[in-house]
Amino acid sequence: MAVTLAIDCMGGDHGPGVTVPAALAFARRFPESRIILVGLEDRIRPLLSGVDIDSGRIAVHHATQVVAMDESPALALKNKKDSSMRVAANLVKSGEADACISAGNTGALMAISRFVLKMLPGIDRPAICTVLPTTKGHVHVLDLGANVDCEAEHLLQFGIMGAMLVAAVEHKERPSIGLLNIGEEEIKGNEVVKQAAELLRDSGLNFIGNVEGDGVYQGEAEVVVCDGFVGNVALKISEGLAQMLASFLKQEFSRSPLTKLAALVALPVLKRFKNRVDHRRYNGASLLGLRGVVVKSHGSADAFAFGCAIERAFEAAREGVLERIASQVAAYQAQRAPSLNDSNNSPAQETA
Amino acid sequence: MAVTLAIDCMGGDHGPGVTVPAALAFARRFPESRIILVGLEDRIRPLLSGVDIDSGRIAVHHATQVVAMDESPALALKNKKDSSMRVAANLVKSGEADACISAGNTGALMAISRFVLKMLPGIDRPAICTVLPTTKGHVHVLDLGANVDCEAEHLLQFGIMGAMLVAAVEHKERPSIGLLNIGEEEIKGNEVVKQAAELLRDSGLNFIGNVEGDGVYQGEAEVVVCDGFVGNVALKISEGLAQMLASFLKQEFSRSPLTKLAALVALPVLKRFKNRVDHRRYNGASLLGLRGVVVKSHGSADAFAFGCAIERAFEAAREGVLERIASQVAAYQAQRAPSLNDSNNSPAQETA
Repeated sequence: MAVTLAIDCMGGDHGPGVTVPAALAFARRFPESRIILVGLEDRIRPLLSGVDIDSGRIAVHHATQVVAMDESPALALKNKKDSSMRVAANLVKSGEADACISAGNTGALMAISRFVLKMLPGIDRPAICTVLPTTKGHVHVLDLGANVDCEAEHLLQFGIMGAMLVAAVEHKERPSIGLLNIGEEEIKGNEVVKQAAELLRDSGLNFIGNVEGDGVYQGEAEVVVCDGFVGNVALKISEGLAQMLASFLKQEFSRSPLTKLAALVALPVLKRFKNRVDHRRYNGASLLGLRGVVVKSHGSADAFAFGCAIERAFEAAREGVLERIASQVAAYQAQRAPSLNDSNNSPAQETA
Repeated sequence: MAVTLAIDCMGGDHGPGVTVPAALAFARRFPESRIILVGLEDRIRPLLSGVDIDSGRIAVHHATQVVAMDESPALALKNKKDSSMRVAANLVKSGEADACISAGNTGALMAISRFVLKMLPGIDRPAICTVLPTTKGHVHVLDLGANVDCEAEHLLQFGIMGAMLVAAVEHKERPSIGLLNIGEEEIKGNEVVKQAAELLRDSGLNFIGNVEGDGVYQGEAEVVVCDGFVGNVALKISEGLAQMLASFLKQEFSRSPLTKLAALVALPVLKRFKNRVDHRRYNGASLLGLRGVVVKSHGSADAFAFGCAIERAFEAAREGVLERIASQVAAYQAQRAPSLNDSNNSPAQETA
């Protein structure tokens, strides 16, 4: 079955010069994909001349406006009804596309997606979920900044959404879920986290308990749940640390002719190391909880990184992530409903 | 003027085998220091035989109990009144020592210090402050886990304490203070953070605004303030990431005889890099807000790292951090008091 992807070609620091070649390369790699390139037609068309892909698989959908990277989400929502971002979301809403991808303004993409697509039943708030490398492989972490104040129930919903994303795209039926906390003991953390742990424990998910900051990169869980403030700080502090370490390593290898020679000898090893932790491979954050697959690429993504984000959207749509989340939420609610009447079902009453 | 340091010799993963040699090495390096070694005398004395330091500068203070690394802080507080940790704090309380240092159980050290020493006037809660490397030098970050739920006023107090610590030990009169947030814009973040930003802006401190996670390691501020939950996650996620990157680098250099040869050539460079980010140099977290200087060493510290923690306590005591915090809090309160009566002093009223 073909999967159709609506691509906001205008978003990101580089716009069509990166998004269009990335989309075309993706289309070549995945013959079961169809691509709708959304944005200013006169910017997109010239990039398609001489392209060797079946024209039935590549369409251009003109959109007259562009959401700026620093534009207020509220104003973008109000004033940019024909922006490439909004039109891409509309195509998902109408069913013409199965997923949309944008490297644009995160706040605007969140606001527009939520307004256009609405939330899945039983999910109160969308969450941003990304993949990070670990010593054992990788981990999905959510939320990364959509929600700055979360209640326990929201963290539970993030757990359900993260688990279903991993179940779908990695074919793991019961991925392990950890709750980001400041100690592994149950008594640690703030009230919201303690309540969330209780909800997760009773949720039927494969909840393994608290995970501390260092446990995230040690791969203690396949999904790590946290509120958006903490998650955003954790993600950005990781980016900052990785950049600092890389710059220190570079400085040390450029210190003298001798160290430069050492760098030359070590180059193949350093390259392998760099590839292994290449953040471009982890590009593409899923906006979960919406009635549609939406993936946000990093604004600075190059064509390789943007292609990874497209692939994430493609897989989520193909593997039915939305249906999985919806059915897991429904199952959870059905399981919880009778427990509200526990007193009627308790053995004590039955024997009475 | 001599500075006397009470050292909990029993704390940490290694106990006297590490703490005593570290203390002796410190005493040799800093002739103006006096050291009181606190703990089980029969464990400490044998390590002093043949020591060439003026015996007037090294004392042993017997304490019969030891707080275990995994002991509940409440039980340690209640049952371990003659623990090395408690006795070290008592020596600060009585004025026999100017500061104490422990590599023991953090929760117990916090509970005992708070009980024994009490809080400085105008400070509601203690905070844990540590130093992290940045691309520009280093940064002091607090709180790192003493407080899981903070109000805006607490974050302001952390700002005052961090600023005064840096002012004292680094002789910088107005260090820059950043507030850890998920965006640099004023509108970002949760309510507590927004209110804290207002308080910090009016505090008379050199407040530079919000700092994002990546800005911490970019050295955007000299002091970064956050609540203990966020700070603890940020610290531990950094540890986890650094460990993961180090292990990947090691793996890549050990992959084959050829890469091992490259490692040999690159060894001096890799060593310099490692020294530069050596977390042992940053060992020693200050427990700020107490009526006494208390420094917590990492439990796994070796003698070099434990020596760094001793040095931090020594400098904080010598440079009068407590007095600086107390006078800055008093100045802040005096500045704020009239503003409560602003309506009486406003020009409009004066002309009326």
